[in-house]
Amino acid sequence: MSSSEPKGDLGLIGLAVMGQNLILNAADHGFTVVAYNRTVSKVDHFLANEAKGKSIIGAHSLEDLVSKLKRPRKVMLLIKAGAPVDTTINHLVPLLDKGDIIIDGGNSHFPDTNRRYEELKAKGIYFVGSGVSGGEEGARYGPSLMPGGAEEAWPYIKNIFQSIAAKSDGEPCCDWVGPAGAGHYVKMVHNGIEYGDMQVICEAYDIMKRIGGFTDKEISEVFAKWNKGVLDSFLVEITRDILKVNDTDGTPLVEKILDTAGQKGTGKWTAINALDLGMPVTLIGEAVFSRCLSALKEERIRASTKLLGPEIPKDAVKDKQAFIDDLEQALYASKIISYAQGFMLIRQAGKDYGWKLNNPAIALMWRGGCIIRSIFLGEITKAYRADPDLENLLFDKFFTDALNKAQPGWRRSIGLATSYGVPTPAFSTALAFYDGYRSKRLPANLLQAQRDYFGAHTFRVLPEAANDHYKEGEDIHFDWTGHGGHVSATTYDA
Amino acid sequence: MSSSEPKGDLGLIGLAVMGQNLILNAADHGFTVVAYNRTVSKVDHFLANEAKGKSIIGAHSLEDLVSKLKRPRKVMLLIKAGAPVDTTINHLVPLLDKGDIIIDGGNSHFPDTNRRYEELKAKGIYFVGSGVSGGEEGARYGPSLMPGGAEEAWPYIKNIFQSIAAKSDGEPCCDWVGPAGAGHYVKMVHNGIEYGDMQVICEAYDIMKRIGGFTDKEISEVFAKWNKGVLDSFLVEITRDILKVNDTDGTPLVEKILDTAGQKGTGKWTAINALDLGMPVTLIGEAVFSRCLSALKEERIRASTKLLGPEIPKDAVKDKQAFIDDLEQALYASKIISYAQGFMLIRQAGKDYGWKLNNPAIALMWRGGCIIRSIFLGEITKAYRADPDLENLLFDKFFTDALNKAQPGWRRSIGLATSYGVPTPAFSTALAFYDGYRSKRLPANLLQAQRDYFGAHTFRVLPEAANDHYKEGEDIHFDWTGHGGHVSATTYDA
Repeated sequence: MSSSEPKGDLGLIGLAVMGQNLILNAADHGFTVVAYNRTVSKVDHFLANEAKGKSIIGAHSLEDLVSKLKRPRKVMLLIKAGAPVDTTINHLVPLLDKGDIIIDGGNSHFPDTNRRYEELKAKGIYFVGSGVSGGEEGARYGPSLMPGGAEEAWPYIKNIFQSIAAKSDGEPCCDWVGPAGAGHYVKMVHNGIEYGDMQVICEAYDIMKRIGGFTDKEISEVFAKWNKGVLDSFLVEITRDILKVNDTDGTPLVEKILDTAGQKGTGKWTAINALDLGMPVTLIGEAVFSRCLSALKEERIRASTKLLGPEIPKDAVKDKQAFIDDLEQALYASKIISYAQGFMLIRQAGKDYGWKLNNPAIALMWRGGCIIRSIFLGEITKAYRADPDLENLLFDKFFTDALNKAQPGWRRSIGLATSYGVPTPAFSTALAFYDGYRSKRLPANLLQAQRDYFGAHTFRVLPEAANDHYKEGEDIHFDWTGHGGHVSATTYDA
Repeated sequence: MSSSEPKGDLGLIGLAVMGQNLILNAADHGFTVVAYNRTVSKVDHFLANEAKGKSIIGAHSLEDLVSKLKRPRKVMLLIKAGAPVDTTINHLVPLLDKGDIIIDGGNSHFPDTNRRYEELKAKGIYFVGSGVSGGEEGARYGPSLMPGGAEEAWPYIKNIFQSIAAKSDGEPCCDWVGPAGAGHYVKMVHNGIEYGDMQVICEAYDIMKRIGGFTDKEISEVFAKWNKGVLDSFLVEITRDILKVNDTDGTPLVEKILDTAGQKGTGKWTAINALDLGMPVTLIGEAVFSRCLSALKEERIRASTKLLGPEIPKDAVKDKQAFIDDLEQALYASKIISYAQGFMLIRQAGKDYGWKLNNPAIALMWRGGCIIRSIFLGEITKAYRADPDLENLLFDKFFTDALNKAQPGWRRSIGLATSYGVPTPAFSTALAFYDGYRSKRLPANLLQAQRDYFGAHTFRVLPEAANDHYKEGEDIHFDWTGHGGHVSATTYDA
């Protein structure tokens, strides 16, 4: 077999669920895929079962894998992020030739991808870090793919990637993202946004359950209705379905699930990156922290008996339809804010990392295939196609109008939850951002005065308040106490 | 001069405002301090002016400095954090002997202090990283000092440190914090809390100004009154004073200050560390993000003409006293939450980094001298003295009662701000935390179902819902769609 002409269009390493499904997907599209897994028995099992009768070839070693690939060889890794990726690359490189392509399709952190890109560039290997989203189903029938790195590789992988990717109105949800770690960066922000989307859905569910007194079946019907409107999306759709599933005793399965969520992944990275770049990506931040709080289950149980809250009367909601409509606006508006924040972060990353990023393409990549796919991303794609350099998504007329329309119901929903003691960290932070962002003046003037008072940190004056002793753009230290020193704190920050 | 017996009790490098004031402070307490600065003219200027007639000796080189110190030599750095600290240490070490002590009193990031501690330990030098807080005034008349690192150094510096530190009811606001970078770690959290305290004060000011229509003089009077109650603190006191200061034209100076706050420091580190350790330190997070948002001044000006909000009528506040009282409770409750979150973080750091940290001592160190000093920290000290292993500050009866009492006014304040469009990111996130923390059940059950639906991430069941097919503690994958695979996502996270 190994003496014949190599047939493989793509080599794939890692036969967990995502790897298997991506291979089956590529085979469906006429590509010949060579499958390899470190635990080789998995290869044989896969070949004898799911892969049977398809254009899928097994490999029992990396040498075997490489020998079965057409040149330039394209080897894709779908393995656990971190050290295993470096190990596998190190084993692969001596087997490859210059101009061959390694694609990391795992959830690698973008600084690692930046590093690997540089290391492999020095060895003549084209390295691509690609976001892959869509879970099991997406990988099998059309994921969202976000490749970045060595642009020289793109012509060789474009056809495979765009063929297996999801389609939205006939357009593939896959395009070239940008240099170095840009693909994994955009995937990271995608995952952060996914955290946010899940959190806002959870808050709507919690309010309907605890304040509205709705059953899971009723809540499912609300999500079903929302899924036909502006909130039409994969996550709303699965929420509708999840809430309908009963356990064998006829009660909703979801109500039996332990309410502690893991958070060790890319959502955390997004929030940290937002802090690093100084961008107020507050909704994702709160979504990550909400997962942290959920994990403190035992402490919460103890707290629930000590810390008081308002009673929620049975008739807290008088007009159910108005309550649901307000909630829909709260969810929608919070989601708009979250995406606007996500794109603010991407914009800043482009500036700080010197990446030319393609906003309309990013929105389109998320439009289908991935976990956050939605009608809504079609509107974002439109907004960025109309103006690729749009300063802020909120300045696009569609979204400005949507928020202006949504805000009364959004405020009422938060007011209700606030008065009845149901936590809405994401709804609330989104509104605080909205109200802060549209504030010409924020109270940071007082904060600057405080910093100058206790630390001689200096301040500037408003352009409209400049005068002959306080000039615009000048760093001013005022002696607030009347007995402070004249030494400014320029070289020391306490 | 250099041939005589060395007289210096402490060498101090770095003559910016903090360094100068700390030297003067030490001299006031009878210590002989040797002062050095890289730009040597600063030494001469200081000696000829502020230091004149005091027990302060100048040094014109590091050799000169070292030669003037008693053994074991104690050299304190008060210079810009980062590379300058390493450079100075590298120049110092060859001049020192084993058993000498280097103290970094700058705002170093604790991982750097961890590293320097290890490097210097290998060379026989005792390295101490000490938080120093209190700004200009604190450094001069009694700062809060938070030393950690090589405990062998503590007996030699304890007297100096506790002498120059602030006193609270006769006790010095300085004690040994813990190993390696623990001192700088605690200082970092202190600064994060400082960010939070400043933000909640700004929110109260903003609400009084925009909703209450109060003048700065009226707001100053409110802060003056609050400063006599539970909110009695340095930051409330200076806010009272700042709001009274008029420019030469007779209008409040603070209203002329540009509302953009810097945020490149330790607040950001605290928020990032909270994400890293998985602790929901949401209030500091929002405080940092608020500074980021404030910095987008030009964008905010543009947004202010496009994004709508509610009109605030002149008579929005009917009962001014009730309005102020509610606001006081909102500020107080938010502050309690912020400190509880800060101590949750410190507790987790103790576990994760293997540091034995002394909670009552930390609270006492913050009680006086530093920027966040307050009556309130006396209560925290009491709580941790009563139970040093207190699981959560909110479980101490004083704080449980305070929150139970505060929550109605807190909710009303947020409700008011929400309905009138004034952003309260910190008040709101604190309440969301409170309501989340006291929730026995959070909606994370739905989130876990979603993760299992699209990514086969598995879930667990509530202990009380366990049955013969869903056992407690078992990782369960459910086939929600009825046609998913049986492969779980244990080795790959998408």
